[in-house]
Amino acid sequence: MAAPAVAAPVASCIFCSIVAWKIPCIKLTETAHSIAFMDIYPISKGHCLVVPKVHAAKLHEVTDEVIADVAVTMRRVAAAAGAENYNVLQNNGELAHQAVHHVHFHIIPKTSEADGLGFVWPAAAGDKAALQSLADDIKSRL
Amino acid sequence: MAAPAVAAPVASCIFCSIVAWKIPCIKLTETAHSIAFMDIYPISKGHCLVVPKVHAAKLHEVTDEVIADVAVTMRRVAAAAGAENYNVLQNNGELAHQAVHHVHFHIIPKTSEADGLGFVWPAAAGDKAALQSLADDIKSRL
Repeated sequence: MAAPAVAAPVASCIFCSIVAWKIPCIKLTETAHSIAFMDIYPISKGHCLVVPKVHAAKLHEVTDEVIADVAVTMRRVAAAAGAENYNVLQNNGELAHQAVHHVHFHIIPKTSEADGLGFVWPAAAGDKAALQSLADDIKSRL
Repeated sequence: MAAPAVAAPVASCIFCSIVAWKIPCIKLTETAHSIAFMDIYPISKGHCLVVPKVHAAKLHEVTDEVIADVAVTMRRVAAAAGAENYNVLQNNGELAHQAVHHVHFHIIPKTSEADGLGFVWPAAAGDKAALQSLADDIKSRL
Protein backbone atom coordinates (compact mmCIF):
# COMPACT_ATOMS: atom_id res chain seq x y z
CA MET A 1 0.00 0.00 0.00
CA ALA A 2 1.26 3.46 -0.83
CA ALA A 3 2.21 5.72 2.05
CA PRO A 4 -0.63 8.04 3.03
CA ALA A 5 -0.35 11.56 1.60
CA VAL A 6 -1.15 12.93 5.06
CA ALA A 7 0.27 11.33 8.19
CA ALA A 8 -2.37 9.91 10.51
CA PRO A 9 -2.77 11.38 14.00
CA VAL A 10 -0.70 9.58 16.62
CA ALA A 11 -2.90 8.40 19.52
CA SER A 12 -0.17 8.91 22.10
CA CYS A 13 0.75 12.42 20.88
CA ILE A 14 -0.59 15.25 23.06
CA PHE A 15 -0.50 17.76 20.18
CA CYS A 16 -2.40 15.41 17.86
CA SER A 17 -4.98 15.13 20.66
CA ILE A 18 -5.18 18.92 20.93
CA VAL A 19 -5.60 19.25 17.14
CA ALA A 20 -8.45 16.69 17.34
CA TRP A 21 -9.97 18.50 20.37
CA LYS A 22 -9.61 15.37 22.49
CA ILE A 23 -7.59 17.50 24.90
CA PRO A 24 -8.61 21.15 25.41
CA CYS A 25 -6.24 24.03 24.79
CA ILE A 26 -6.35 27.79 25.19
CA LYS A 27 -6.49 28.48 21.49
CA LEU A 28 -5.28 31.66 19.81
CA THR A 29 -5.99 30.89 16.16
CA GLU A 30 -5.97 28.14 13.57
CA THR A 31 -5.58 27.80 9.81
CA ALA A 32 -5.84 24.91 7.35
CA HIS A 33 -2.49 23.52 8.50
CA SER A 34 -1.63 25.08 11.85
CA ILE A 35 -2.95 25.89 15.30
CA ALA A 36 -1.62 28.31 17.93
CA PHE A 37 -2.34 28.07 21.66
CA MET A 38 -0.97 29.12 25.02
CA ASP A 39 1.80 27.03 26.59
CA ILE A 40 0.39 25.91 29.95
CA TYR A 41 3.90 25.67 31.42
CA PRO A 42 5.08 29.11 30.31
CA ILE A 43 8.58 30.42 30.89
CA SER A 44 7.32 33.99 30.48
CA LYS A 45 4.02 35.84 30.23
CA GLY A 46 2.60 35.27 26.75
CA HIS A 47 4.60 32.10 25.95
CA CYS A 48 2.65 30.28 23.25
CA LEU A 49 3.07 27.51 20.69
CA VAL A 50 2.45 27.22 16.95
CA VAL A 51 1.98 23.65 15.76
CA PRO A 52 1.30 21.99 12.39
CA LYS A 53 -1.95 20.04 12.50
CA VAL A 54 -0.46 17.04 10.76
CA HIS A 55 1.82 14.89 12.85
CA ALA A 56 5.56 15.10 12.20
CA ALA A 57 8.22 14.67 14.82
CA LYS A 58 10.83 17.01 13.35
CA LEU A 59 10.93 20.14 11.21
CA HIS A 60 12.47 18.52 8.15
CA GLU A 61 9.66 15.93 8.05
CA VAL A 62 6.96 18.58 7.45
CA THR A 63 5.94 19.42 3.87
CA ASP A 64 6.73 22.79 2.29
CA GLU A 65 3.03 23.68 2.17
CA VAL A 66 2.60 22.99 5.88
CA ILE A 67 5.73 24.77 7.06
CA ALA A 68 4.85 27.86 5.01
CA ASP A 69 1.43 27.98 6.69
CA VAL A 70 2.94 27.43 10.15
CA ALA A 71 5.41 30.27 9.57
CA VAL A 72 2.68 32.72 8.57
CA THR A 73 0.69 31.82 11.69
CA MET A 74 3.82 32.26 13.78
CA ARG A 75 4.45 35.71 12.34
CA ARG A 76 0.86 36.80 12.90
CA VAL A 77 0.76 35.52 16.47
CA ALA A 78 4.09 37.23 17.23
CA ALA A 79 2.66 40.49 15.89
CA ALA A 80 -0.53 40.13 17.94
CA ALA A 81 1.33 39.12 21.10
CA GLY A 82 3.01 42.52 20.88
CA ALA A 83 6.24 41.74 22.73
CA GLU A 84 9.15 44.06 21.98
CA ASN A 85 11.66 41.31 22.74
CA TYR A 86 10.97 37.63 22.12
CA ASN A 87 12.55 34.37 21.05
CA VAL A 88 11.28 31.76 18.62
CA LEU A 89 12.53 28.26 19.36
CA GLN A 90 11.87 24.89 17.77
CA ASN A 91 13.62 21.78 19.11
CA ASN A 92 14.23 18.55 17.21
CA GLY A 93 15.20 15.36 19.05
CA GLU A 94 15.66 14.49 22.70
CA LEU A 95 19.28 15.60 22.85
CA ALA A 96 18.08 19.00 21.59
CA HIS A 97 15.51 19.14 24.43
CA GLN A 98 12.43 18.24 22.40
CA ALA A 99 9.86 17.08 24.98
CA VAL A 100 6.79 16.56 22.75
CA HIS A 101 7.67 14.73 19.55
CA HIS A 102 5.35 16.71 17.28
CA VAL A 103 6.85 19.81 15.64
CA HIS A 104 6.15 22.97 17.67
CA PHE A 105 7.50 26.49 17.58
CA HIS A 106 7.71 28.32 20.91
CA ILE A 107 7.11 32.08 20.84
CA ILE A 108 8.59 33.31 24.10
CA PRO A 109 8.35 36.98 25.15
CA LYS A 110 11.40 38.25 27.05
CA THR A 111 10.65 41.06 29.49
CA SER A 112 13.66 40.78 31.81
CA GLU A 113 16.99 38.99 32.12
CA ALA A 114 15.37 36.51 34.51
CA ASP A 115 12.25 35.48 32.62
CA GLY A 116 11.88 33.81 29.24
CA LEU A 117 14.65 32.02 27.42
CA GLY A 118 18.22 31.99 28.67
CA PHE A 119 21.04 30.55 26.57
CA VAL A 120 24.32 28.77 26.76
CA TRP A 121 26.10 29.85 23.58
CA PRO A 122 29.53 28.21 23.10
CA ALA A 123 30.53 30.14 19.96
CA ALA A 124 34.02 30.07 18.51
CA ALA A 125 35.36 31.44 15.23
CA GLY A 126 34.98 28.73 12.60
CA ASP A 127 37.75 27.56 10.28
CA LYS A 128 36.82 28.89 6.82
CA ALA A 129 38.09 25.89 4.87
CA ALA A 130 36.26 23.48 7.17
CA LEU A 131 33.06 25.53 6.88
CA GLN A 132 33.33 25.58 3.08
CA SER A 133 33.82 21.82 2.99
CA LEU A 134 30.81 21.32 5.26
CA ALA A 135 28.74 23.70 3.11
CA ASP A 136 29.70 21.75 -0.04
CA ASP A 137 28.53 18.58 1.69
CA ILE A 138 25.16 20.12 2.67
CA LYS A 139 24.73 21.65 -0.80
CA SER A 140 25.21 18.24 -2.40
CA ARG A 141 21.97 17.18 -0.68
CA LEU A 142 19.97 20.34 -1.44
CA MET B 1 5.64 59.76 -1.27
CA ALA B 2 4.15 56.36 -0.60
CA ALA B 3 6.17 53.97 1.49
CA PRO B 4 8.19 51.58 -0.67
CA ALA B 5 6.62 48.17 -1.16
CA VAL B 6 9.97 46.58 -0.35
CA ALA B 7 12.22 47.89 2.40
CA ALA B 8 15.52 49.27 1.18
CA PRO B 9 18.76 47.58 2.19
CA VAL B 10 20.31 49.09 5.31
CA ALA B 11 23.92 50.15 4.65
CA SER B 12 25.06 49.33 8.17
CA CYS B 13 23.40 45.90 8.22
CA ILE B 14 25.79 42.99 7.74
CA PHE B 15 23.06 40.68 6.44
CA CYS B 16 21.89 43.28 3.88
CA SER B 17 25.54 43.47 2.78
CA ILE B 18 25.70 39.68 2.44
CA VAL B 19 22.45 39.64 0.41
CA ALA B 20 23.98 42.31 -1.88
CA TRP B 21 27.28 40.34 -2.08
CA LYS B 22 29.19 43.32 -0.64
CA ILE B 23 30.39 40.92 2.06
CA PRO B 24 31.12 37.29 1.11
CA CYS B 25 29.40 34.36 2.77
CA ILE B 26 29.65 30.60 2.56
CA LYS B 27 26.33 30.17 0.82
CA LEU B 28 24.17 27.06 0.96
CA THR B 29 21.22 28.12 -1.19
CA GLU B 30 18.99 31.04 -2.07
CA THR B 31 15.45 31.64 -3.31
CA ALA B 32 13.47 34.71 -4.37
CA HIS B 33 13.13 35.86 -0.76
CA SER B 34 15.72 34.02 1.32
CA ILE B 35 19.37 33.04 1.56
CA ALA B 36 21.04 30.38 3.69
CA PHE B 37 24.73 30.38 4.65
CA MET B 38 27.13 29.03 7.25
CA ASP B 39 27.46 30.88 10.58
CA ILE B 40 31.14 31.82 10.82
CA TYR B 41 30.97 31.79 14.63
CA PRO B 42 29.30 28.40 14.97
CA ILE B 43 28.25 26.89 18.27
CA SER B 44 28.27 23.42 16.71
CA LYS B 45 29.38 21.74 13.49
CA GLY B 46 26.88 22.63 10.75
CA HIS B 47 25.45 25.75 12.46
CA CYS B 48 23.92 27.84 9.68
CA LEU B 49 21.55 30.77 9.16
CA VAL B 50 18.47 31.35 7.04
CA VAL B 51 17.76 35.02 6.35
CA PRO B 52 15.08 36.94 4.42
CA LYS B 53 16.66 39.04 1.66
CA VAL B 54 14.57 42.07 2.50
CA HIS B 55 15.60 43.98 5.60
CA ALA B 56 13.39 43.63 8.66
CA ALA B 57 14.62 43.74 12.22
CA LYS B 58 12.08 41.40 13.79
CA LEU B 59 9.96 38.43 12.74
CA HIS B 60 6.62 40.20 12.96
CA GLU B 61 7.85 42.90 10.54
CA VAL B 62 8.34 40.43 7.67
CA THR B 63 5.52 39.89 5.17
CA ASP B 64 3.60 36.62 4.97
CA GLU B 65 5.06 35.91 1.51
CA VAL B 66 8.62 36.35 2.74
CA ILE B 67 8.26 34.35 5.96
CA ALA B 68 6.64 31.46 4.06
CA ASP B 69 9.62 31.38 1.68
CA VAL B 70 12.12 31.60 4.57
CA ALA B 71 10.39 28.70 6.35
CA VAL B 72 10.56 26.47 3.28
CA THR B 73 14.27 27.23 2.87
CA MET B 74 14.80 26.49 6.56
CA ARG B 75 13.06 23.13 6.26
CA ARG B 76 15.06 22.17 3.18
CA VAL B 77 18.38 23.20 4.71
CA ALA B 78 17.56 21.29 7.91
CA ALA B 79 16.81 18.21 5.82
CA ALA B 80 20.05 18.57 3.84
CA ALA B 81 22.15 19.25 6.94
CA GLY B 82 21.08 15.82 8.11
CA ALA B 83 21.42 16.30 11.87
CA GLU B 84 19.39 13.90 14.02
CA ASN B 85 19.10 16.47 16.81
CA TYR B 86 18.99 20.21 16.18
CA ASN B 87 17.49 23.48 17.37
CA VAL B 88 15.97 26.31 15.37
CA LEU B 89 16.26 29.68 17.07
CA GLN B 90 15.28 33.19 16.04
CA ASN B 91 15.87 36.12 18.41
CA ASN B 92 14.03 39.45 18.38
CA GLY B 93 15.40 42.44 20.27
CA GLU B 94 18.55 43.02 22.29
CA LEU B 95 17.07 41.75 25.55
CA ALA B 96 16.30 38.51 23.69
CA HIS B 97 19.96 38.28 22.58
CA GLN B 98 19.50 39.47 18.99
CA ALA B 99 22.97 40.55 17.85
CA VAL B 100 22.31 41.36 14.17
CA HIS B 101 19.13 43.38 13.72
CA HIS B 102 18.00 41.67 10.54
CA VAL B 103 15.73 38.63 10.97
CA HIS B 104 17.71 35.37 10.97
CA PHE B 105 16.91 31.80 11.90
CA HIS B 106 19.73 29.73 13.37
CA ILE B 107 19.75 26.03 12.53
CA ILE B 108 22.00 24.49 15.18
CA PRO B 109 22.89 20.78 15.16
CA LYS B 110 23.23 19.23 18.62
CA THR B 111 25.61 16.31 18.78
CA SER B 112 26.44 16.27 22.50
CA GLU B 113 25.36 17.86 25.77
CA ALA B 114 28.34 20.23 25.51
CA ASP B 115 28.01 21.55 21.97
CA GLY B 116 25.19 23.48 20.32
CA LEU B 117 22.45 25.28 22.16
CA GLY B 118 22.04 25.05 25.91
CA PHE B 119 19.00 26.51 27.66
CA VAL B 120 17.85 28.12 30.84
CA TRP B 121 14.16 27.21 30.99
CA PRO B 122 12.34 28.71 34.00
CA ALA B 123 8.98 26.95 33.44
CA ALA B 124 6.18 26.96 35.98
CA ALA B 125 2.59 25.76 35.69
CA GLY B 126 0.49 28.66 34.38
CA ASP B 127 -2.75 29.87 36.00
CA LYS B 128 -5.51 28.83 33.58
CA ALA B 129 -7.68 31.92 34.10
CA ALA B 130 -4.73 34.25 33.62
CA LEU B 131 -3.68 32.36 30.47
CA GLN B 132 -7.23 32.56 29.08
CA SER B 133 -7.36 36.29 29.76
CA LEU B 134 -4.01 36.77 28.05
CA ALA B 135 -5.17 34.66 25.10
CA ASP B 136 -8.32 36.79 24.76
CA ASP B 137 -6.13 39.85 24.67
CA ILE B 138 -3.85 38.41 21.95
CA LYS B 139 -6.88 37.14 19.95
CA SER B 140 -8.36 40.64 19.95
CA ARG B 141 -5.36 41.72 17.85
CA LEU B 142 -5.35 38.72 15.50
